[in-house]
Amino acid sequence: MSSAIARTAIRGRFLDFQNSVTQAQELPEQVRYIEDALLICEHGKIQWFGTWQAGQSQLTADTPIQHYPEHLIVPGLIDTHVHFPQTEMMGAYGEQLLEWLNSYTFPTELQFSDQAYANQIAQFFVQELLKNGTTTALVFCTVHPESVDALFEAAQQQQMRLIAGKVMMDRHAPEALCDTAESAYADSKTLIEKWHGKGRNLYAITPRFAPTSSPEQLARAGQLKAEYPDVYLHTHLSENPNEIAWVKQLFPEQQGYLDVYHHYGLTGSRSVFAHCVHLEENEWQCLHQTDSAIAFCPTSNLFLGSGLFPLQRTWEHQVKVGIGTDVGAGTSFNILHTLSEAYKVQQLQGNKLSAYEALYHATLGAAKALDLDDKLGNFTVGKEADFVVLDLHATALQSLRQQRAKNLEDALFALITLADDRNIHATYIYGRRAYYNPESNPKPNTEAHPTTGT
Amino acid sequence: MSSAIARTAIRGRFLDFQNSVTQAQELPEQVRYIEDALLICEHGKIQWFGTWQAGQSQLTADTPIQHYPEHLIVPGLIDTHVHFPQTEMMGAYGEQLLEWLNSYTFPTELQFSDQAYANQIAQFFVQELLKNGTTTALVFCTVHPESVDALFEAAQQQQMRLIAGKVMMDRHAPEALCDTAESAYADSKTLIEKWHGKGRNLYAITPRFAPTSSPEQLARAGQLKAEYPDVYLHTHLSENPNEIAWVKQLFPEQQGYLDVYHHYGLTGSRSVFAHCVHLEENEWQCLHQTDSAIAFCPTSNLFLGSGLFPLQRTWEHQVKVGIGTDVGAGTSFNILHTLSEAYKVQQLQGNKLSAYEALYHATLGAAKALDLDDKLGNFTVGKEADFVVLDLHATALQSLRQQRAKNLEDALFALITLADDRNIHATYIYGRRAYYNPESNPKPNTEAHPTTGT
Repeated sequence: MSSAIARTAIRGRFLDFQNSVTQAQELPEQVRYIEDALLICEHGKIQWFGTWQAGQSQLTADTPIQHYPEHLIVPGLIDTHVHFPQTEMMGAYGEQLLEWLNSYTFPTELQFSDQAYANQIAQFFVQELLKNGTTTALVFCTVHPESVDALFEAAQQQQMRLIAGKVMMDRHAPEALCDTAESAYADSKTLIEKWHGKGRNLYAITPRFAPTSSPEQLARAGQLKAEYPDVYLHTHLSENPNEIAWVKQLFPEQQGYLDVYHHYGLTGSRSVFAHCVHLEENEWQCLHQTDSAIAFCPTSNLFLGSGLFPLQRTWEHQVKVGIGTDVGAGTSFNILHTLSEAYKVQQLQGNKLSAYEALYHATLGAAKALDLDDKLGNFTVGKEADFVVLDLHATALQSLRQQRAKNLEDALFALITLADDRNIHATYIYGRRAYYNPESNPKPNTEAHPTTGT
Repeated sequence: MSSAIARTAIRGRFLDFQNSVTQAQELPEQVRYIEDALLICEHGKIQWFGTWQAGQSQLTADTPIQHYPEHLIVPGLIDTHVHFPQTEMMGAYGEQLLEWLNSYTFPTELQFSDQAYANQIAQFFVQELLKNGTTTALVFCTVHPESVDALFEAAQQQQMRLIAGKVMMDRHAPEALCDTAESAYADSKTLIEKWHGKGRNLYAITPRFAPTSSPEQLARAGQLKAEYPDVYLHTHLSENPNEIAWVKQLFPEQQGYLDVYHHYGLTGSRSVFAHCVHLEENEWQCLHQTDSAIAFCPTSNLFLGSGLFPLQRTWEHQVKVGIGTDVGAGTSFNILHTLSEAYKVQQLQGNKLSAYEALYHATLGAAKALDLDDKLGNFTVGKEADFVVLDLHATALQSLRQQRAKNLEDALFALITLADDRNIHATYIYGRRAYYNPESNPKPNTEAHPTTGT
C-alpha cells in the first residue's frame, strides 16, 4: 500500500459546492468557484483551501506545488451504483432486466469464484474508475467472498474510499451462484470484520434484490445490519415493471417492493437503493422517513429500457440521491457522460437538469447519499483530498464549443454533454495523483516554490 | 481538388449488406462478412470485391495494397440529418425545440453571412465527419448562400458526396435570418445551378420547417422541386408536440403537419423529413405512398426531450429511414454512438434494435433513404468507394469486451455500445484515404505487391 505524500499543494481553477442543499434552486448560492485557488493536502486530508493569494503564506519551502492553470478541478466524482464483475459484459444485447440477468449476468459472475480472475478484473475496474475521475464508488461484487477480497485489495492499493459487499442470493439463480441464508450471513460477517473500516474501505450488506433472496436470507441481512449499524445496505429497487410484479407475487404479505426491505430492517441512512424508477407514493415517503438514498442510473435505465427516473421527486420528497453508472447495464464508466444521459432522461419528462445540479449529484449530493458528506464531496478543510483535474478541451470539437462558452455554468454543461474519459486529466486520491492522462493537454507545470503570483 | 488515386487495393475483414430488405428479419441473410477480403478501387469506384484468395489475380504490379488485418471495414457511414452551422453550439442548455431555436440556434446562424467564418466552420465540420467515419451527409446550411458555398467547397476538396442546401425561412425568425419567398427561390435556383451534380455534390431544397416558411415560400419551394425533380427536399417534421400544434394553427386548411409539405409538392422519393417522432397514421401512409424518407435522430430527440421515435413502424409502413446525428441538437457526430442511442430509444419502447439492423440504417438503408443506393451503401462493384476502417479495440475497456465477443454480431453490438471517434481508424472517400487516426492501433501494413497469401 502506497502511503500518502505528507504535504502537497495544488493550484488551479477550483469548483465545488460549499454546503448541501434541500432544493435545487439553492445550488447557485452554494457554488464556490475560485479562478486561482490553492489546495494544500496533508496526510491525505485537505489542510488548507482558498485563494492562491491568501494561500501562499501557508506554503513551506519543501511543499511541492502542482499547477493546472488550464484545467478545472472538481471534487472526486462518486459512483453510487456499479457492478465490478460486469465490467467485461458492457453492451450485452437485447434484453430487459430479468432476461438480461439470466442470459448475461449470471454466466459472467460465475467466473469470480476464481481468485486470480477476480483480482485481474478488480484491478482493471479500479483503473477504469480512476481513468474516469471516479474516486469513490458503491460496488456490487459477486456472491463469492473472493470477489470482495479482490476489490478491496485493489482499492486499498490506491487508498481509495470504496464501499462494497458480497452479493447475497439464495434462490432464482444458477446453483453455483447461490449461497444460503446461513452462509451469506456468515461470509458477510467475516468480510465485515475483515474489511469494514480498514483503511478507507467500507462494507455494504448486498442482497442482489428481493427476488433472489429468500425471506430467511433477508432476515439474516437485517440481523447483520442490526449488529453492524454503521455498515451499508446496497440493493436494487423498482427498476422494471416485471421485476416489481414478481416481487409482489413473491412477497404477498408485504405492502410493496420497498416494504420488503423495510420489513427486514434494511432501510436507513446508510441504505442505498439503485434505480427506483417506478416508486409508488408511499415508497417515496418511506425513503424519506428512513433517510434512505437512491442511486439514479440513467444509462442503465435507458439501455435496459427500464424507464425514466423522476429526479425532481427526490427534491419534492427530500430523498437523498446520487448518480450511478450501473456498469455493466450502464454503458459508460464516465460519471460526466452519465450526467449527460441524466439530462436527457429529465428532458423527456419536461424537466431541466442544470449543470450545477448535475455536478452536485455526482459530488456533494452523492457524498450525502452515501452518508459520507463529513468526509467527501467538496473542498472543505478536514475532508479527504479526492479530486479530479478536468481538461475541458480534450477534443477539437470540445475546444470549439468551449471557446464559445458564455460562463462557467455553460462551460460545465458543454463539458458534461460532450464528455468521455479523455476529459479526465488527472485523478487524485487521498492527496496523491493516482492517475494521469498522458494524452491530455496541456501538461501540468510543476513549480519550484516560492513562485511569483499569476 | 485532389484527384482520386487511379487504382488502389484494400485488404482486410469486410462487412456489408448485399441487398436492401423490406423487413428487419431478412437482414441476417443479407450480411456479407469476408474474413480476408480484397477491395479494388479504380477512379473512385469499386472495381472488384471478393475474397483475397480470388482477388490476387486481379492485382497488377503497380497497385498499392493497404492491409488492415486487425480491423473491420464497413461501408461509409451516412448521416441523413445534420446542421453544419450548429457544430459550435452542441450542448446548449435547457430548452425544448422552439425555445432552443430562438435562444441558441438563430443567434449562432447569424454568423454565417460572413464567408470567411462560414468557410472556417465548414472545414471543421467536414473534418469532424471524416474523423467519425461519416462519408455522406444530408446537411442543413443557414439562410445565407455563402454557407452553402462554404460547405460544398469543403466537401469538394475531399471529393465527398454531400447533399446540402440553403435554409428557406421568411417568417418567425430574426429579420437578419429571413429571406423572402422570391429571394429564397432565386438564391436556391442559383445554388442548384452552381452545385447540384457538380463533382459529387447534390442540392437539397431546404425550408427549415413549416412554421418559418410562409405559404408563398412553400409554394416557391414546390415550384423549384418541380423544375428540378432530381434535387432533394430536406426539412423537419413532427419533432415536438408544441411545434405540431403551431403548424396546425398556422395551416388550418391542411389536414396535418405532413400535409402542409405534401400540399406544396414537397414529398417524394428524394424528400427527407427529419424526426417524425409523433406522426399520425395517415402521415405514415403518406410517407409510404410518396416514397419519402425519415431521418431518425435519437440523440437529438433525447437531448431536446422531443420523444421516442417508433422505428419499428418504418418496417410496418414500408417507409425509408436513415440515421441522423442532428448536430447541434444531437450530442455527437459519431454515427455508431448515435446507433447506441437509437438502441436505447427502442428499448424504452420494448423493442430490440439488433446490431445488424443498426448498421443497416447507417449504411445501405440510409443510402436507400437518400435514393443513392445505386451509388452508396455497400461494396457492390461499380459503387463509389467510400468506406471506414474500424478499430474495435480503441480503449482498454473495449479490448476487454471484444475479447469476450461471442460472434461477429456481438462484436458489432459491443462496438456500437461503447463507440466514439477513437474507433475510426481510417476513412476512405472515393477510394482515397481522407482521414487516418494516428493514435489508433495497430498501424496498417502497406505491402509491396506481389504478396504471399495469409
